[in-house]
Amino acid sequence: MLVKEYCKKSNTFFGIKCQKLLYSTKSKFQKIKVYSSKTFGNVLMLDDCFMITEKCSDHYHDECLRLIDLKNNKMKVLIIGGGDFGLVKKISKEKSFSKIDVVEIDDKIINTCKKYFKNNFKFNSSIKNKVSIYIDDGYEWVKKKNNLKYDVIIIDCTDPNPIAKKLYSNIFYKNINYILKKNGIFIQQSGSPVIDYKKIIKPTIKKLKNNNFKKIIISAFHMPIYPLGLWSFIKSQKP
Amino acid sequence: MLVKEYCKKSNTFFGIKCQKLLYSTKSKFQKIKVYSSKTFGNVLMLDDCFMITEKCSDHYHDECLRLIDLKNNKMKVLIIGGGDFGLVKKISKEKSFSKIDVVEIDDKIINTCKKYFKNNFKFNSSIKNKVSIYIDDGYEWVKKKNNLKYDVIIIDCTDPNPIAKKLYSNIFYKNINYILKKNGIFIQQSGSPVIDYKKIIKPTIKKLKNNNFKKIIISAFHMPIYPLGLWSFIKSQKP
Repeated sequence: MLVKEYCKKSNTFFGIKCQKLLYSTKSKFQKIKVYSSKTFGNVLMLDDCFMITEKCSDHYHDECLRLIDLKNNKMKVLIIGGGDFGLVKKISKEKSFSKIDVVEIDDKIINTCKKYFKNNFKFNSSIKNKVSIYIDDGYEWVKKKNNLKYDVIIIDCTDPNPIAKKLYSNIFYKNINYILKKNGIFIQQSGSPVIDYKKIIKPTIKKLKNNNFKKIIISAFHMPIYPLGLWSFIKSQKP
Repeated sequence: MLVKEYCKKSNTFFGIKCQKLLYSTKSKFQKIKVYSSKTFGNVLMLDDCFMITEKCSDHYHDECLRLIDLKNNKMKVLIIGGGDFGLVKKISKEKSFSKIDVVEIDDKIINTCKKYFKNNFKFNSSIKNKVSIYIDDGYEWVKKKNNLKYDVIIIDCTDPNPIAKKLYSNIFYKNINYILKKNGIFIQQSGSPVIDYKKIIKPTIKKLKNNNFKKIIISAFHMPIYPLGLWSFIKSQKP
């Protein structure tokens, strides 16, 4: 079976030949589907968009990790979204840290990925003790947690759809600023440089500047399963 | 209508929503099709693979041009393949040169592109006088032309299918060496770093080394309309 994602901004399709639909559900927030495939292993789709695969396309997490270039082996990390645990797995393998907090709005994502992307959830107990999961709206969570301080904050969310758009707002960046340490790193997934420059990347940079973030860079990277194969993060720093 | 290319190496599809099939023929060498599309303008397919578009995806030619980093405003350029004239157009706009020879095996490519990719063939007469077209098999042409000397030779061909595979052979590289000037640049399109590393990139590098090419680099670049969105050139130099 051909499972495909249609990108209406570019009028293009990307498709993966899959063997089987393994799981399909609808949560309060989104449609969740998991397929099995030969090339990519299990494949997660949210609202008919490819999100993560088990094999061959982990450029997204690799690139995000590359941007965490702090020399701090006690770093405290906050991930908003990221319920697939791809990023937690990478950080736990390659970085030294004292704490990772994951704030995921949709517990069904975590439960689905625990079953179909098992490898992302395999940790020894010393790592496990440093990872906390909060099932909550990241926007609201950040607003009320202004007593915490992080070295790294990553927004690993979907594009600014009705659920995620608050995570691209001026007021959210203001609240992020409160809980980020001096010189702390803020990383936001920022869509495709080919099709989202005007509507996501440019306005995000403007809002970050308004909130006094410095050293703002766009980091583009190859992501074969996302529309047109090129994706981006915006990395910035708190002065 | 959805026009799609299936990549059997990765079990993936890429598709473009097109308006109309403008032209379809079969030459002695390949199936040629041209579609019209909203995002990409006219789209050329050879043997059901996307080749070039009028708009939005000229990373291939841009990247090739970036690799021609000679400081020689009288340079002589040879292009094997390239009958779509995308590369000739780019070079003529951005570089200074005394001569471009294009050796294309299939005159139907040139005739089709003259009609449906008109912009690639628009030159003023001073440029026109410096461009020559030879309808010939590039492999044979290079073998017999060992009295010519070029500063830059580019292989702008399809992947090593039955027609193009001679252009990836040891003996071809030996003959290229004869007609390349000292320190001359040789650029070969070398498929996708994701799926063609073992079968195209690695053996090509080995053959270039065997033929004493130096400064061999793989240059990967984003190419949304090619399978999995990442493509490559191998650039090398004659000692």
